[in-house]
Amino acid sequence: MNYREESLKKHGEWKGKIEIVPRVEVDSREKLSLAYTPGVAEPCLAIQKDPEKSWELTRRWNTVPVITDGTAILGLGDIGPEAGMPVMEGKCALFKAFGGVDAYPLCIRSKDSEEIIKTIKLLAGSFGGVNLEDISAPRCFEIETRLKEELDIPVFHDDQHGTAIVVAAALINALKLVGKRMEDIDVVINGAGAAGISIAGFLLRFGVKNVVACDKLGIICEGDDRFNTAQRELAKVTNRRKITGELKDAMSGADVFIGVSAANCVTKDMVRSMAQKPVLFTLANPVPEISVGDAKEAGAFIHGTGSSEFPNQINNVLVFPGLFRGALDVRAKTINFEMMMAASRGIAECVSDGELSRDYILPYAYDKRAHEAVAKAVAEEAVRTGVAGK
Amino acid sequence: MNYREESLKKHGEWKGKIEIVPRVEVDSREKLSLAYTPGVAEPCLAIQKDPEKSWELTRRWNTVPVITDGTAILGLGDIGPEAGMPVMEGKCALFKAFGGVDAYPLCIRSKDSEEIIKTIKLLAGSFGGVNLEDISAPRCFEIETRLKEELDIPVFHDDQHGTAIVVAAALINALKLVGKRMEDIDVVINGAGAAGISIAGFLLRFGVKNVVACDKLGIICEGDDRFNTAQRELAKVTNRRKITGELKDAMSGADVFIGVSAANCVTKDMVRSMAQKPVLFTLANPVPEISVGDAKEAGAFIHGTGSSEFPNQINNVLVFPGLFRGALDVRAKTINFEMMMAASRGIAECVSDGELSRDYILPYAYDKRAHEAVAKAVAEEAVRTGVAGK
Repeated sequence: MNYREESLKKHGEWKGKIEIVPRVEVDSREKLSLAYTPGVAEPCLAIQKDPEKSWELTRRWNTVPVITDGTAILGLGDIGPEAGMPVMEGKCALFKAFGGVDAYPLCIRSKDSEEIIKTIKLLAGSFGGVNLEDISAPRCFEIETRLKEELDIPVFHDDQHGTAIVVAAALINALKLVGKRMEDIDVVINGAGAAGISIAGFLLRFGVKNVVACDKLGIICEGDDRFNTAQRELAKVTNRRKITGELKDAMSGADVFIGVSAANCVTKDMVRSMAQKPVLFTLANPVPEISVGDAKEAGAFIHGTGSSEFPNQINNVLVFPGLFRGALDVRAKTINFEMMMAASRGIAECVSDGELSRDYILPYAYDKRAHEAVAKAVAEEAVRTGVAGK
Repeated sequence: MNYREESLKKHGEWKGKIEIVPRVEVDSREKLSLAYTPGVAEPCLAIQKDPEKSWELTRRWNTVPVITDGTAILGLGDIGPEAGMPVMEGKCALFKAFGGVDAYPLCIRSKDSEEIIKTIKLLAGSFGGVNLEDISAPRCFEIETRLKEELDIPVFHDDQHGTAIVVAAALINALKLVGKRMEDIDVVINGAGAAGISIAGFLLRFGVKNVVACDKLGIICEGDDRFNTAQRELAKVTNRRKITGELKDAMSGADVFIGVSAANCVTKDMVRSMAQKPVLFTLANPVPEISVGDAKEAGAFIHGTGSSEFPNQINNVLVFPGLFRGALDVRAKTINFEMMMAASRGIAECVSDGELSRDYILPYAYDKRAHEAVAKAVAEEAVRTGVAGK
């Protein structure tokens, strides 16, 4: 099937992928008087007296907006706020289907970080958490950091951390198959934007010692001031051997390649130059860094992509519904790294040793067990780390 | 039933009066690929190429936020953004139940008009219209006026115009029963805030010649600079006989009293001082300007209140669902006075001459025929006045 053509047709038929429905009946005088005036005055006054009650008397406890400025939609780039909305609506549908979360899409007509931060802060009383989506680097870093500091509800930029969480889950299981340990592997990450930088930092927390990040300008190395601020920060904790050169130099001898970059930038020769049993996660979307066929021919032992058309789909659909479900269930005040790491482990554990194979390292995106496992792991870790609000 | 006590209990059980549900299935690889990646890239690109397509390929065409700053919630006043949310959620439930509109509640943590305007403008690509709610006067006037000027989607402050529309509908039918004409009646409006000022201006458009508005300081009269800017503007087109004094002076000899003010401010003697067959619409909520019993004793010929507990409930629930349904159906770029007047007539016509009585001047709030009539009348008038976008 030509998914993109068919999808356009379907979107025209669907005329929206979500809708808002009442949970109360209002078809009599009495029911109206309870759900609306005059009865509704009482819950209003209860919240005025104790604002905490807004978590019990309204839908806030289960509500998360999916917010974008349209600047980094899928791999399509800055296509504008309204043009990003089909993705936001899709995420909202997935939030409910897999996490039971009430999510609604919002696009902001601004690329100014301060305006975006301000807008979200002013609206924060309306919801239980914030999912930032497809906001380009480096603005996404500042926006997320500031909102996490200034709000007491979970704020999560999915492109950064959702991707990192699912990549870590895939890596946990891939390493079981290749018989290597986090501590020992050399990892190359190509694409040092929002996702790449987050993946690098996250893998270090999982015990990986040697991560080398590359971008269009080549290997990112401390002291090289061609790179942007976020990348120079990254260089302080990665590439400790301080190698320089291009992507192909980084890949030579590497155990794991993680691509969050661009179509077809990896050649068969680069794969051949990797260590034995190479692991490739090529997440460029919709066309990966190297095709599944080429990677296989060149000896890839495990290959995951972002696409549902091939085995081992590495997609943050596995993360965000359960992550917010877990966070909302315990009214977490934030989403910390411990909770994110628990999510990775929760996903990885959904594949039993008996099921685990080169073509099945992650549960399917529509596997409800996976979402439940993430929710449970995240909620428990929120409680354990003391950020649960109830 | 003690509605307020029971409502508080119910709100605790409901834990939210609306929820967001998917309109698409995502439980297989193929379905996910159509609703989400990779397929979703295509509708995104289609909207990038032609932003108008956002009205066809996302839920925007049917989506309206109900936005408050929490400063004028019901008759409770400035109780804060979060505390207003039970009302906003209730309206969202009614929007869907009676108008098929997907509405979601937003509260803004600011009382600054510029911040509120800015916030709504930045989000405007996310929805098809804006329902402003329970924002106190005089800020509500500036916020609505500016947004109407600066956005090309319908913006509607329900407390002003929803109330005016349903009051006019009630008056059209009440006058049939008392045998008086709009041109001939003396109308007193008590409470010159958002609703009162809008009602006054609206009735003038319906042909009423003599409207006298009162506020806490007494009768509003041109040249009296104790009143605020909006009230002084109102004084230029009302009270042409330039009477002065208190509410009781205004009511003496009046045909119609409309209260959007405070509990129990009207006495039996004031009602007795009115013209023959006096009409009273006492909309203070939850306790009206005079009780139904007292008004009857004092000779009220027709009495309507805001409450569902008595006959003739005059509630803007009859207005907003159908009004936005009609506006969205033709993609109206604004909501003009002609559309609002059509809504009033549409509501009034739902009560046939055979049904019309002193205790039944308006259809019930949950009467679907009324909402359909409003939608049809508004859509037709939008087309006729050239503001329909399709």
